[in-house]
Amino acid sequence: MTAAELTVPKLDYVFHPKSIAIAGVSAKEGTGFGGGGFVASLQEIGFRGPIFLIHPTATAIRGLKCYKSLRDIPDEVDYVISSVNARVVPQLLEDCIAKGVKVLHLFTAGFTETGDAEKAKMEQAVVARAREAGIRMIGPNCMGLYVPGARLAMMQGQIPEAGPVGMVSQSGMNAGEFIRYAVPRGIRASKIISFGNGADLNAADFIDYLTDDPETEIIVAYLEGIQDGPRLATAIRRAGKTKPLAILKSGRTEAGSRAANSHTASLAGSLQVFDGLCKQAGALRVESMEELVDIAVTFRFVKRLGGPNVVVVGGGGGASVLAADDLDAAGLQVPPLLPETQAELAKVTHEAGTSVRNPIDTTSLWEDTGFEATLMPCAKAPNIDVLLYHTSFGGGPMARQVDVRGRMERQVATLRKVQEEGGKPVVVAIRPSVSAEAFEQAEQFQALCWHNGLATYPTIARAGHALARLLEWQKLQG
Amino acid sequence: MTAAELTVPKLDYVFHPKSIAIAGVSAKEGTGFGGGGFVASLQEIGFRGPIFLIHPTATAIRGLKCYKSLRDIPDEVDYVISSVNARVVPQLLEDCIAKGVKVLHLFTAGFTETGDAEKAKMEQAVVARAREAGIRMIGPNCMGLYVPGARLAMMQGQIPEAGPVGMVSQSGMNAGEFIRYAVPRGIRASKIISFGNGADLNAADFIDYLTDDPETEIIVAYLEGIQDGPRLATAIRRAGKTKPLAILKSGRTEAGSRAANSHTASLAGSLQVFDGLCKQAGALRVESMEELVDIAVTFRFVKRLGGPNVVVVGGGGGASVLAADDLDAAGLQVPPLLPETQAELAKVTHEAGTSVRNPIDTTSLWEDTGFEATLMPCAKAPNIDVLLYHTSFGGGPMARQVDVRGRMERQVATLRKVQEEGGKPVVVAIRPSVSAEAFEQAEQFQALCWHNGLATYPTIARAGHALARLLEWQKLQG
Repeated sequence: MTAAELTVPKLDYVFHPKSIAIAGVSAKEGTGFGGGGFVASLQEIGFRGPIFLIHPTATAIRGLKCYKSLRDIPDEVDYVISSVNARVVPQLLEDCIAKGVKVLHLFTAGFTETGDAEKAKMEQAVVARAREAGIRMIGPNCMGLYVPGARLAMMQGQIPEAGPVGMVSQSGMNAGEFIRYAVPRGIRASKIISFGNGADLNAADFIDYLTDDPETEIIVAYLEGIQDGPRLATAIRRAGKTKPLAILKSGRTEAGSRAANSHTASLAGSLQVFDGLCKQAGALRVESMEELVDIAVTFRFVKRLGGPNVVVVGGGGGASVLAADDLDAAGLQVPPLLPETQAELAKVTHEAGTSVRNPIDTTSLWEDTGFEATLMPCAKAPNIDVLLYHTSFGGGPMARQVDVRGRMERQVATLRKVQEEGGKPVVVAIRPSVSAEAFEQAEQFQALCWHNGLATYPTIARAGHALARLLEWQKLQG
Repeated sequence: MTAAELTVPKLDYVFHPKSIAIAGVSAKEGTGFGGGGFVASLQEIGFRGPIFLIHPTATAIRGLKCYKSLRDIPDEVDYVISSVNARVVPQLLEDCIAKGVKVLHLFTAGFTETGDAEKAKMEQAVVARAREAGIRMIGPNCMGLYVPGARLAMMQGQIPEAGPVGMVSQSGMNAGEFIRYAVPRGIRASKIISFGNGADLNAADFIDYLTDDPETEIIVAYLEGIQDGPRLATAIRRAGKTKPLAILKSGRTEAGSRAANSHTASLAGSLQVFDGLCKQAGALRVESMEELVDIAVTFRFVKRLGGPNVVVVGGGGGASVLAADDLDAAGLQVPPLLPETQAELAKVTHEAGTSVRNPIDTTSLWEDTGFEATLMPCAKAPNIDVLLYHTSFGGGPMARQVDVRGRMERQVATLRKVQEEGGKPVVVAIRPSVSAEAFEQAEQFQALCWHNGLATYPTIARAGHALARLLEWQKLQG
């Protein structure tokens, strides 16, 4: 065994196809889902190998030559995406075997998840035949892979820039949603996998893969059900001890459990058991997609907290009071700053008095020099572990600033400097916008923040909750 | 006593000034807060009476003539906004008395909230002198009034369109935030009051006023502290029995309580006692500004639920599963549809099977005819009390629709028809956008929704939570 073989996980070839054939592309450009959607996504992200289309009558679609059958393609094909009807899948599989295909991604639905026994039997037969022939399957009933490094995308709009976050998701829509919400906050993906029914390769396989994958530093997962419980438990335990891991487990209520069953034929299992498993594994179980994104951002940018003591800085007295409540309720502390820190702040603020105790809400924040002179002592305060700065766009005094972009850049440069020199995490809550103009400003500010290594959150409450969960994770890690 | 006197609440004149004088306007256009901010806000919303400015040297600011002193103004002045330094307030008050002013709004801060005993004493002296002279005061340390019907605004961007929601807020920033978040979701205001320290007119006075105000049908409040506990309790009890009432009480934790004290000199008091009071009053106590807005939207558009049974309709299998979890966790039910309803849905959907049980997640929703054919049976289902439709913009198949606006209009027309013919509330969750283009589409869709009488929420979880709280409120109302 060579060194390369030792470090590259066994399933790595699944994520690095050299050529792709897609069966079931509509001759008219479709709604963007299904076969045509995969063609558009792969073309957009710039897949580097050839893409072959299989179509009974068309000559070419979107500039790509069509073949009547997989067997007619003259070149090698190692990866096939199926968007054909479920009843055609057995024939397509035979073609894959004949052609020497290594991976079959079944976007095709209509198997076990329908609740129809005949269709479930067909799924089992397909898996058995594929395994016998040495073909690995992703799906059925899933969106497959987003691997920016290999220029694979499951949906349009997915960027080619890669990063350290891997995801295993039973739902393609939720994988897509994770990507859409996480990317603007600085999350970049190593491999994101939507695996649907998981008839062949399942959650345990993919979690194992990401655990061993050197490109993946952080793992998140969306699971609807438990397949092969003991193996999944082993995979989660190993992953949780190796890398930061957060899992959104749905079907946690009776209604959700029923919905999960009809979505991906999943049996949700006992939440209590799953919760215990996560704790044992040193993994965080989260309750919503928003929380999953927040935790990924926190693992990526905050990494570690020295303790629960937050200094809250930002304009808006009422917002500060609510912030203190939110953070306290999340299990963090908002301690009064020490007299020496308050004295230093009093030098740069008009109000002083109670407004420099913590939360800090002073007009000195509105001026560039006051901004740094206010934040730096807060970050360096000996009884503080993390600085939370909150702001918003489109209202308040900032709205009437002329040089909004310049001011943003100066603020973020200062926040970065404060994080570096203060030696403690600085996190930023950018409260929701209510106009398109403000939304764009907030987006720009958010991009500036993460490019400068700052975690961003959409509300103070969510920032506080994520920080508290990071502390919980640190404790689980022991 | 005339009939008019019987129906117009005693304090009504406070909300309908005929002329306004502003003291403490900067000669250069300022940061938008303080005196200059009030001038700009009143000019923008189109205050109908004259605005006089008091300035020691300037001739005119923003086109308005300046006077050296209030006493120099030749016309009658019934309402004065003070943005002068706190130490000048006693003199300004003497001028108000001499001039026959009825209401003094002290934006001026620097009194009790500083924690300085001397300044607290000054506040008490000012109140005593004002009361003796029959002048009512709003503040100090507050933004004052937003009364669209009287064309009074406390901040720029506040619209002149009036509606049935009244608010009492200890924090001007939070009043502003409520308005900014609630207006795009169809909330229109009767009177919104920021009262700060509440040294003269306080929370009880304003709640009493809104309870009697015929223009106010729904009351929301943001309170930091309890002043004059027994009177406030009486006011809350009467308001809660008269109109839908929701209260965000901050300072609910130790840290928040300390922040409230430094913000508006408030003593937060026991949350448990306050909670008991709300229950007794049939009012909802909420925990965040977001929840306060959600409840206002729910009181305004949903009004009443027949029971806890929700049918969830929308694209995205994973989202549906999480939706079912969220609603179940909120205390609602997502029951399977009856066989006859499922049979009717099966006629219009390709997938049928388990996807028409509830949640409903079918491709039939993507076509105009399928949209109505899917929603109507759901709304008419005998075991359902409310229909929750969820959607998003900027991703998924909708993103590649050509006629996005037309499709939105047809969808909303259908949702309205379904609400009317189904005889049950239809609520819409518009999941967060991640691009400015999508944000604009979502905003347009949201506006179409509320103009057609539909409640909108930014997430499924928040919709579910608000609906559950409406049920709780109905139960409290008995």
